Amino acid sequence: MSARNKIWRVGVAGLGTVGGGLLSFLAERPGFAPAGGEVVVTGVSARSRSRPRAVDISAYSWFDDPVALARSEEIDIFVELVGGSDGPAKAAVEAALAAGKPVVTANKALIAEHGAELAVLAESKGVPLLFEAAVMGGVPAVKIVREALVGDDIKSIAGILNGTCNYILTEMDQGGRAFADVLAEAQRLGYAEADPTMDVGGFDAAHKISILAALAFGCAPNYAAAEIEGIDQVDLLDIGLARDLGYRIKLVASADRSADGVLVRVHPSLAPLSHPLAQAGGALNALFIEGERIGRIYVQGPGAGAGPTAAAVAADIADVMTGAMRPVFQAPAGELAPFTPVDPAKSFGRAYLRLMVKDEPGVIAAVSETLAEAGVSIESFLQKPVENASGVPIVLTTHAVAESVLTAAIDRIAGLPAVLERPRLLRIARI
Amino acid sequence: MSARNKIWRVGVAGLGTVGGGLLSFLAERPGFAPAGGEVVVTGVSARSRSRPRAVDISAYSWFDDPVALARSEEIDIFVELVGGSDGPAKAAVEAALAAGKPVVTANKALIAEHGAELAVLAESKGVPLLFEAAVMGGVPAVKIVREALVGDDIKSIAGILNGTCNYILTEMDQGGRAFADVLAEAQRLGYAEADPTMDVGGFDAAHKISILAALAFGCAPNYAAAEIEGIDQVDLLDIGLARDLGYRIKLVASADRSADGVLVRVHPSLAPLSHPLAQAGGALNALFIEGERIGRIYVQGPGAGAGPTAAAVAADIADVMTGAMRPVFQAPAGELAPFTPVDPAKSFGRAYLRLMVKDEPGVIAAVSETLAEAGVSIESFLQKPVENASGVPIVLTTHAVAESVLTAAIDRIAGLPAVLERPRLLRIARI
Repeated sequence: MSARNKIWRVGVAGLGTVGGGLLSFLAERPGFAPAGGEVVVTGVSARSRSRPRAVDISAYSWFDDPVALARSEEIDIFVELVGGSDGPAKAAVEAALAAGKPVVTANKALIAEHGAELAVLAESKGVPLLFEAAVMGGVPAVKIVREALVGDDIKSIAGILNGTCNYILTEMDQGGRAFADVLAEAQRLGYAEADPTMDVGGFDAAHKISILAALAFGCAPNYAAAEIEGIDQVDLLDIGLARDLGYRIKLVASADRSADGVLVRVHPSLAPLSHPLAQAGGALNALFIEGERIGRIYVQGPGAGAGPTAAAVAADIADVMTGAMRPVFQAPAGELAPFTPVDPAKSFGRAYLRLMVKDEPGVIAAVSETLAEAGVSIESFLQKPVENASGVPIVLTTHAVAESVLTAAIDRIAGLPAVLERPRLLRIARI
Repeated sequence: MSARNKIWRVGVAGLGTVGGGLLSFLAERPGFAPAGGEVVVTGVSARSRSRPRAVDISAYSWFDDPVALARSEEIDIFVELVGGSDGPAKAAVEAALAAGKPVVTANKALIAEHGAELAVLAESKGVPLLFEAAVMGGVPAVKIVREALVGDDIKSIAGILNGTCNYILTEMDQGGRAFADVLAEAQRLGYAEADPTMDVGGFDAAHKISILAALAFGCAPNYAAAEIEGIDQVDLLDIGLARDLGYRIKLVASADRSADGVLVRVHPSLAPLSHPLAQAGGALNALFIEGERIGRIYVQGPGAGAGPTAAAVAADIADVMTGAMRPVFQAPAGELAPFTPVDPAKSFGRAYLRLMVKDEPGVIAAVSETLAEAGVSIESFLQKPVENASGVPIVLTTHAVAESVLTAAIDRIAGLPAVLERPRLLRIARI
C-alpha cells in the first residue's frame, strides 16, 4: 500500500481545548489527506470519559490509560495533549516512541525538560517526535527555526511567547489598571488559568524559548539554565514612565549565542514604541530570529486557542505522513552541542532604573555620582511628579553595561539615605 | 546505505547571485548534513565558464548545457538557478524530473507559469519539486503556506513581495524624490535591474502571489489570471496626499478566495500608517496570511539577496534529504481545484481617488454630486494647496464599493468640465 492511499490511524490523549479542537477539525474535514494518505482518529484517552464535550467521542475506542493508547496496535500516530512535564504525558510519549510510533505533542514543559532524552529514544527508533503546537500555537515557529533556517547560523531569537502575559500587559498599558485587577478579570474571562503561575511567572515562556534555543543552536534544551522573571511585579508606575521615555513593557523571551555559550532569559523588558514587538498587543505572540545569512525574520500571530493550536497539531500529523526524517533538534540527538550557559552577570545591555526618592535637594546629584563611580553611564533621565506617591520617582536609562556592574551600582544606590526602596531594574530589549 | 550517512551529490545550474551564494555557503560549511546525509556539490553549469567569480568552481564538473547537468548520473539533486519562465531553465527542470531527480529552484516565473505541468511530472516520478527561494527570499513563505497551514483553510493572503518596489516607494516617501530619480539611483547601486520592467511593472510580485495562491487554495497557479499594476505610475503627489490621510502607498500583492473563485491582484495600494505592511520599509518583504482557524499570521524579512536566498535553497535541499513526499501544491497535481478567476470588476473595496481640478467655485459640489449619483459613498475628503501645480488636487476616499461602480463613476468625473485629467485611482488595501 502506498503512502498515497494509506489510512493513518491517530490516537489522541487529552481532550481539553486543543484535543477538542483537533477532533472538531477532523470531523469538519472528513478525508483530511494532506500528504496523500487519510487521517482517521481511532482511539482517545482523557481523565473523564463522561464529561460533557462539544465533540462526540462515542465512535472512538476509549482508553482510561494514555499509556495503553500509546502502545495500542490500533494506532499509527500518537498525539499527546495531556500536558505536564512528567507523569502520564511523559510515560505515554515514551511508550509510543518505544513502540516505534511517531509522536505529535503540544507539551512545551515535556520537550523543554525532557526533550534531549526523548530525542534519543525517537531517533533510535527512527520515528518523528514533533511539537509545533508547543511554541506560539498557530505560528509555525518550530518549523521555521528547525527546517527553514537549517541553511543558516542563527545568532539570536527574541520574542513574546506568552499570550496571557501579553494580554495582561496590554490591558495594564491601555486601561491604566493594576496587574492584580487585570489578572482577576482575565481569570473570570477564561484567558488566564485559576493558578496563573506558569504564565505570569514567566515559566511557560521559558519552556518555549528553551525549545527554540535548542532548535536554533543545535544544543539540548536546558530549561534549568534559563533565567526567569515574570510580570507579577510589573508596576503601573513603570509602564507609564517607560511610555514617557518612548518604550512599552513586554515580557520578552530571548536566546543569544556567543563564543561563551548560550544565554536564555525571560524578563519584562522595554521595547521601543515603534518596534514591532511593542506593537504586538493583546494575546498576540511575536518572534524575531536573526541569522548570519538571512538577517532578521519577524513572525507574529495567535499563540494559543483551540483553532490555531489544533491546526498546528494537524500540520505535524501531515508532516509525519510525508515520511520526513530529520533530527528532533538541529542535529542528531547523540551529536547535540553541549549547552554552555553564559553567566547572566557577564551579559551586557542597556537598562531602565526607577528609583523612589525623598523630595529633597541633592538627590539627583547623589544618584548620578554613585552611578558614575560604579561605572554606569546614564543615557537619559526623567523626573516626573506623581500624585499620591510616598516619594518622588526618578527614572533613568543607561548605556550598555555589564549586568554585574549594574547590580553593584544598584546595591550602592539602594544604600543612599534619600533612596526609599530598592531601585526597580528593567532591561531594555536588544531587538 | 542509510540516509544518515548518504552523500547527496548536488548539481547547480546558474552561478549568479544566488548560485554563487549557495556555493559560498556550502564552502563555508563543509560537511553540511542537515538531515543526516552530507551535501556535496559535484557539477555546475552557467553561461560562461571563465567569467571571474568570487567562488572557485574548478573542483566541480563543468557542464555547458544545464540539461546535460540535469540528466547527469553524477548528481542526486538538481538545483536550477538559471531563471526565466521558459528556455534552458524549463528544459533542464523537465529533464531532471524526467530522470527521477529531485529539483530545487528559485525560479518564480517558471513555477508561476508552468507549475501545474511540472507538478504532474514530479509527482508521476515520485520526486520533490521545491521552490522556497522563489518567494520572499529568506522568508519561508512557501513552507508556511504549503506545510504549516495545511491544517487550516486559508481565506486570503496579502503582502509586499517585491523588495525593489518597496525600496523605491520607501525612498520616494522618505526623500520626496520622484520615481524616475529613485529608480535610476537604484540601478546605479545594483538594487534594480538594467531592465526593471519585471520588478516595477508588478510582474515579479504577480509571479510570487500566483504561486502562493496555488499553495494556499489548492489550485493550479494561474499567472495569466492575475490583475497587475506596477509602481511606475505612482506619483509623489499621491504619496504625500495619502500620508496626509494617514496612509502609505505600498505595492500590495493579494489573493482572495470566495465562493465565486479566486482573485489575484497586484496594485499600488494604501496601507494605514500604523499597519505592519506600512511600516515594512526599504527592501523588506512582508506577508499576511488569514486562515479560518489560525486567524492572521504575519511574517516579514529580507526578500532577496545572496545570503537569504541561498539559505532558502539550502533549506530545500535539506527537505529533499529528509525523504519527505507531499504534493507540490496543496493537493496532488491531478486533483488540484480549478482556478476560477473572479472578475475584478465585481470585487468590492475602499478606494482613494485623486482629481486635478480647476481652481473655481462649485467643483467640489459637482464631484460629490457625480459620485452620489453613481452610487459611490465618500468617506473622507481633502483639498490642499499645492505649489507649481497646473491645477488644484482634491483627494477623497470612498466606502467599500464595487469596482465596476467605481470605474463608471470615474468615467463620469473625468468628463466634468472642471476636471483637468482622468482621476487617479488607488485601492485601499484590505488588510
